[in-house]
Amino acid sequence: MHAIKGVKTWGGMTVDELVSGMRGCAFGAGRLAKAVDIYEEMLNEDTTKFITIAGALVPAGMRDVIAEMVRARYVDVIITTGANLVHDIIEALGAHHYKIMEEESNIKIDDLELREQSMARIYDVVVHDAAFAQLEDFLRAVFERMNPDRSYSIREVIELIGANLSDANSILKSAVDADVPVFCPAIADSMIGLHAWIYKQMKRGLHVDAFDDMKELTDIFCDAEHTGAIILGGGVPKNFLLQTALVAPARADGREGFDFAIQITTDTPENGSLSGATLEEAKSWGKIGRDAKAVTVYCDATIALPVLFAAVQARSMNRSARR
Amino acid sequence: MHAIKGVKTWGGMTVDELVSGMRGCAFGAGRLAKAVDIYEEMLNEDTTKFITIAGALVPAGMRDVIAEMVRARYVDVIITTGANLVHDIIEALGAHHYKIMEEESNIKIDDLELREQSMARIYDVVVHDAAFAQLEDFLRAVFERMNPDRSYSIREVIELIGANLSDANSILKSAVDADVPVFCPAIADSMIGLHAWIYKQMKRGLHVDAFDDMKELTDIFCDAEHTGAIILGGGVPKNFLLQTALVAPARADGREGFDFAIQITTDTPENGSLSGATLEEAKSWGKIGRDAKAVTVYCDATIALPVLFAAVQARSMNRSARR
Amino acid sequence: MHAIKGVKTWGGMTVDELVSGMRGCAFGAGRLAKAVDIYEEMLNEDTTKFITIAGALVPAGMRDVIAEMVRARYVDVIITTGANLVHDIIEALGAHHYKIMEEESNIKIDDLELREQSMARIYDVVVHDAAFAQLEDFLRAVFERMNPDRSYSIREVIELIGANLSDANSILKSAVDADVPVFCPAIADSMIGLHAWIYKQMKRGLHVDAFDDMKELTDIFCDAEHTGAIILGGGVPKNFLLQTALVAPARADGREGFDFAIQITTDTPENGSLSGATLEEAKSWGKIGRDAKAVTVYCDATIALPVLFAAVQARSMNRSARR
Amino acid sequence: MHAIKGVKTWGGMTVDELVSGMRGCAFGAGRLAKAVDIYEEMLNEDTTKFITIAGALVPAGMRDVIAEMVRARYVDVIITTGANLVHDIIEALGAHHYKIMEEESNIKIDDLELREQSMARIYDVVVHDAAFAQLEDFLRAVFERMNPDRSYSIREVIELIGANLSDANSILKSAVDADVPVFCPAIADSMIGLHAWIYKQMKRGLHVDAFDDMKELTDIFCDAEHTGAIILGGGVPKNFLLQTALVAPARADGREGFDFAIQITTDTPENGSLSGATLEEAKSWGKIGRDAKAVTVYCDATIALPVLFAAVQARSMNRSARR
Repeated sequence: MHAIKGVKTWGGMTVDELVSGMRGCAFGAGRLAKAVDIYEEMLNEDTTKFITIAGALVPAGMRDVIAEMVRARYVDVIITTGANLVHDIIEALGAHHYKIMEEESNIKIDDLELREQSMARIYDVVVHDAAFAQLEDFLRAVFERMNPDRSYSIREVIELIGANLSDANSILKSAVDADVPVFCPAIADSMIGLHAWIYKQMKRGLHVDAFDDMKELTDIFCDAEHTGAIILGGGVPKNFLLQTALVAPARADGREGFDFAIQITTDTPENGSLSGATLEEAKSWGKIGRDAKAVTVYCDATIALPVLFAAVQARSMNRSARR
Repeated sequence: MHAIKGVKTWGGMTVDELVSGMRGCAFGAGRLAKAVDIYEEMLNEDTTKFITIAGALVPAGMRDVIAEMVRARYVDVIITTGANLVHDIIEALGAHHYKIMEEESNIKIDDLELREQSMARIYDVVVHDAAFAQLEDFLRAVFERMNPDRSYSIREVIELIGANLSDANSILKSAVDADVPVFCPAIADSMIGLHAWIYKQMKRGLHVDAFDDMKELTDIFCDAEHTGAIILGGGVPKNFLLQTALVAPARADGREGFDFAIQITTDTPENGSLSGATLEEAKSWGKIGRDAKAVTVYCDATIALPVLFAAVQARSMNRSARR
Repeated sequence: MHAIKGVKTWGGMTVDELVSGMRGCAFGAGRLAKAVDIYEEMLNEDTTKFITIAGALVPAGMRDVIAEMVRARYVDVIITTGANLVHDIIEALGAHHYKIMEEESNIKIDDLELREQSMARIYDVVVHDAAFAQLEDFLRAVFERMNPDRSYSIREVIELIGANLSDANSILKSAVDADVPVFCPAIADSMIGLHAWIYKQMKRGLHVDAFDDMKELTDIFCDAEHTGAIILGGGVPKNFLLQTALVAPARADGREGFDFAIQITTDTPENGSLSGATLEEAKSWGKIGRDAKAVTVYCDATIALPVLFAAVQARSMNRSARR
Repeated sequence: MHAIKGVKTWGGMTVDELVSGMRGCAFGAGRLAKAVDIYEEMLNEDTTKFITIAGALVPAGMRDVIAEMVRARYVDVIITTGANLVHDIIEALGAHHYKIMEEESNIKIDDLELREQSMARIYDVVVHDAAFAQLEDFLRAVFERMNPDRSYSIREVIELIGANLSDANSILKSAVDADVPVFCPAIADSMIGLHAWIYKQMKRGLHVDAFDDMKELTDIFCDAEHTGAIILGGGVPKNFLLQTALVAPARADGREGFDFAIQITTDTPENGSLSGATLEEAKSWGKIGRDAKAVTVYCDATIALPVLFAAVQARSMNRSARR
C-alpha cells in the first residue's frame, strides 16, 4: 500500500516520462504504468514474448506499430485473427483503408449507400470491394504454388503468404523476415477461408490441417526460459495462447503458466466471457503462473498499445545506452 | 414514430405477456420485444435458422435452453466455440459445473487456492480438473474410431462426438438426433484441440481439414428460401456465419445477405471490434439484407436468451392452437 | 458451492417460473434470480425499501412499473434524478415521448433535422419542445403557490409538484397519494432547475435549501427496523442513498448499513466510478451491512426491472394466498 | 474520407508527437488525436472553457493535472461532483489516498477486513477514516465563518472552502487563486452534505440555496465569445453544464449551444443514459452547436486526460515560441 502520487504533465514531455509519472496513480493510469514496467522486465529477462491480436487493429492504423514490434523482436510469436491477416495483406498489395466520420459530424453514415458504392464498413473505416478482388488474385497465386499432395499447417500457409509479399511495412512480411511464427487457428473465419473454399470448389488440391499448429506452439512455449503474453483484445487468439500452458509440463523450478502477462481490453469480466476474464481467473487454470507479473489495462488498444510501446522503446534505448 | 407505451406487470403474468408489453418501450425493453417479433416472423416464414454461440453459455446454465431449441428445431444450424462443445461433453459424461459465490458475499475467491484444489474458474463457476480427465478418455476413444487414412471436416468430427454421447440433454447429442449440423471453425482453440494434439503426438493418424466446412455451410445458406441469424455474443462464430453471405450469389429476387437477424451481446460498437459491430454495419458488407428485419439486444445472454425463447415458444404454441 | 442446474423454458410459462428456474444458473441469470429472492425476503421482513432511479427510465417506458411499485408500496422512499421527475410531469400533463428507430432500420437519425423539427432526442426516444412549454406553465403555477417568505426542502417542492398533478399513472402523484417521499438532491440539474432560475430572474421569491433533505432521509433510515436498497443505475441517487448509512448510528444489535441491496446497472467497476462500484466495496464504507443480502445484476434496467418486479408480484400474491 | 495512416512510435518520442501521429488512425486513437486538435483550436479562439468532472479522478491521482489546468487557465469554469471536492480537501489537509493491489496479485481484497481497519475503498484506492475526521473539523470551521443570516449559493460555499485551504496543489485553492468558479449542483450528495446536516442539527444557521448557481453559470455562458466543454465522465456535471445552453439565447450570428466539445467517457450510448449519450444527440437539443467541433473519446479518463493535456501543453508552448 503506497500513497497515491498524482501524475504531472508538461509541454514537451516524453511518452515514457508520462507513463512513469502514472506509476503513482490508480485506476487505468496505474495499470498502464504497471504494464510498461512488466514489459520492461520481460525484456530484461530471457523471455519468449507472445502477442495475441484480436479486433480490427490493422484497419485502425496499428499496423506500423505491430510490424515494428515484430522487426525489432519486441515480440517473438504472433497469434491473431484471420481479419488482421487479410487487412495486412490488402495494405501490402497497395490498397488502403479509409476513414469516414461518424458521430459528431454532420455527415450521417448510410450503410445501404456504402453498399451501393461498394464500400464495406468497419466502424469508422471503410474498404473498397476492389481491395478484396486484389486479395483474391494474390491468394490464388499463393495457393497455386503450394504442393497439392501434402498437408500444411495453418502457420505454414501464413508464412507462404508473408513470403510472397514485398511490402516491408507488412506485419506478415516482417514476421517472415524476423523469423517470427504467426498462428491463426480460426483462419477459415476470414476472406482467406472464403478464397480457400473457392479454390477447392475448382477441384484444386489444398490440404490445411486444423490441429497441426498445436505442436509447434507448444514446443515454443516449452523451450522458453521465461514466457510472456501480450494480449490485445480477447477472442480465439487469447484463449489459444493461454491454453498452451495447460499441456506444458511444469518447469524444473515448479513454475507453470506464463511468467508475465499484459492484457489490453475493453471487455470486462461481468458477463462471464473468456474475452473479459481476468488474469487472476487464468491462475486457477494454471495458464498464468502463481507468481506471475500480470496486469489488465481496460482501454481501447488503439490508444494503449502505442503509448505502451513508445514507453517500452524509450526504456530499451536507455538500457542500451547504459551498457 | 409511435408514442411510448409503458409496460405493465402483474403477479402471475407470463413471459410472453411481459415481452409483448415491452413492445411500446424504448431502449433494451423495446429491442427485446422486437427480437421476439422477428423470431416469430422467422418461424412463420420458411426460414433456415442459424445460431451462433460465443461465451461460456453452457457452464452458465443455458445448455437445456439451447438443446431444446435444437430438438424442437427452433434452430437448424449451430456455429459455436470449442469451449461450449467441451462443456457440453463434460456434462454429458456426468460431470458438473459448480457455482461459487463471488461479489457480495463474505467468501472471497482465491484463484491460487482453487488451483491447489484442482478447480478451474469461469467467472462464478468452477469445474474440477477430474472432469477434463474424463473428457480425455472420451475424446481418445472417438479419435480411435476415426479412419486414420481419410480427411475429415470439423463438422464431421463434431457429429462423431455427438453420436458417441448418450445424454439426451446434450446439445451435441440433440443436434445429431435432430439432424442439425454443428460448425466450430476454431476447434483447435479448445480442449478438443489439445487432445487432438496429444493424440497426434502419439503418431496416431487424425486428419481434420481447416477449410472443408465452408462448402457445407455455404450450401445450406444458398439452398435456404429465407435465412435467419440468431447471434449470441460475437467472436469467430458471429463472423464465420455472416461471412457466408459474402460468397453466396444474390437471390433471383435480388435479396442478398440474411433476411432476419437477432443479436444478443454485451459488446458495443465503440471500440471497433467485429464482436460489437452493429447489424447496420453488416449491411454495408451485404451480410445482412437491405430490407432485413434485424435487431441487437444489448444484454447478458443468460438473461435475454431464456426470456426470448420462452416468449417464442408461447407464440408457437398459440399458433399451433389456432390451426 | 452447488451444481449448476440449467434453466428450462416452455410456452406459457410465467415470469416467476422463469426466474425461479434461473436460480441454478450462473452469470446474469443467477444474479437476477438472487435479486428476486432478496426482494421477496425484504418484503417478508419489516423492511423500509428505498429505490434510487438514474437513467432515462421514464422516457423508456418504465413509468407504469415504477408508479405501481409506489402505489402498492413495494417501495417506501424514492431518490431520483431531475430528469425522471421532468419526464413524469410531462406525461402527466398529457404530452408523450415518441420512439424513433435507430440502428438496424433504413431510417437514419439526423439530429440536426430533429433540431429543426423541434424534437429533442434521448437515444431512440424523442420529445417535442412543445411538451417543455407545457411544463414551464405548470411549474410556474406551482412556484406561485409557494410561500416566498419561507425556505422549502427539495422534497417539499417535489411533493407540491405531485399534489398538483391529476394523472393517476404519475410516479409523483402516486407518491403523494401513497405517502412516499421523493428526494432529488440534484434538482437544479434539470428543467425544474432551469425554470426555477427563470422564475427567480423575475424577482419572484423561491427559497429551496440544498441541504434540508438530509435530515428527513436520515431519520427514515434510522427509524427503520430493516433497510433495503433497490438501486437502478448509479449517479447521485445511488450515492445519496448509500451515504445516509454513514451518519446513522449502528443498531442495538450491531447492524450498520443496509440490510438488503439490489443493484441493476450496466456500469462495471473497472473504471473506478461510484456508479459501477460493487456492493462489496460499499461494505468497506459501512454503507452495506457485513451480513447484508446483496446482489448486482449487470443488465439494462428496462429489461431487468420489469422481470424482477413481475416475479416479486407473483410471490407476494402467492404469499397472500397462503395466509 | 482519407486513407488511414498508421501511427509510428520510437523511443524518446514526446506525447505530442505520439498524438499527432494518431491523427491518421481510426477508432479511439483517431478520436484522441481529434480531441487534442479541438482543444488547441479552443485555445486559439477566444473561448470560455468549462470542464465537468465526474468519477473519482482525484483519488486516482488526477489532482495535479486538473489543478494545473486551472492555474494555467486551460479551463475557466469547473462543474464537479461533491466527491471530487471532498477528496481534494482531504489531500489539502495533509491526508492521503492509498493504493491497494486488487486483481492479478496474490493479495485478495477483503472489504470487511478493510472496514475493521477503518479504511474505505474506492476500487483500488483506500482512504483512512481519520482523513474524514480532519475534514469534519475543517468544514465546521468554514461553516462557522459563514453569516447565518444570509443565503449562500453553492458556488460561494465552495469558494469559501477553497479560500480556507493553503495547499497550492489543491484544485479548490487553485480555483480561488485563478478566479475560476467551481459549481457542484449535487453538493448535498457528499461528505460536505453530511457535515452540513450535522451542523444544522446543532441548530446552527446555514442557508445554501439549491438554485442560485444557475444564474451565474448561465451568465458566464452568455457572456462568452465562444464556448467549449471538456466533459470527463457523465453524471450531473455533464448535464448541468449542457443544459445551460438550453436557456441561453442564440448568438447574433445564429450560433447556439457549445462551439467546442470534448467528451472522455467509458459510458456508451446503448443503454440510453445521459452519461453515455453522444454529442450528436446533444445537437438535437441545441446543447451542442450544429457546426460545433466535437468528439467523444471512449477511454478511462485517467489515461486519456493526461495524454490530452500533455499534448495540448506542448502545442501551447510551441505557439508561444512562434510568436
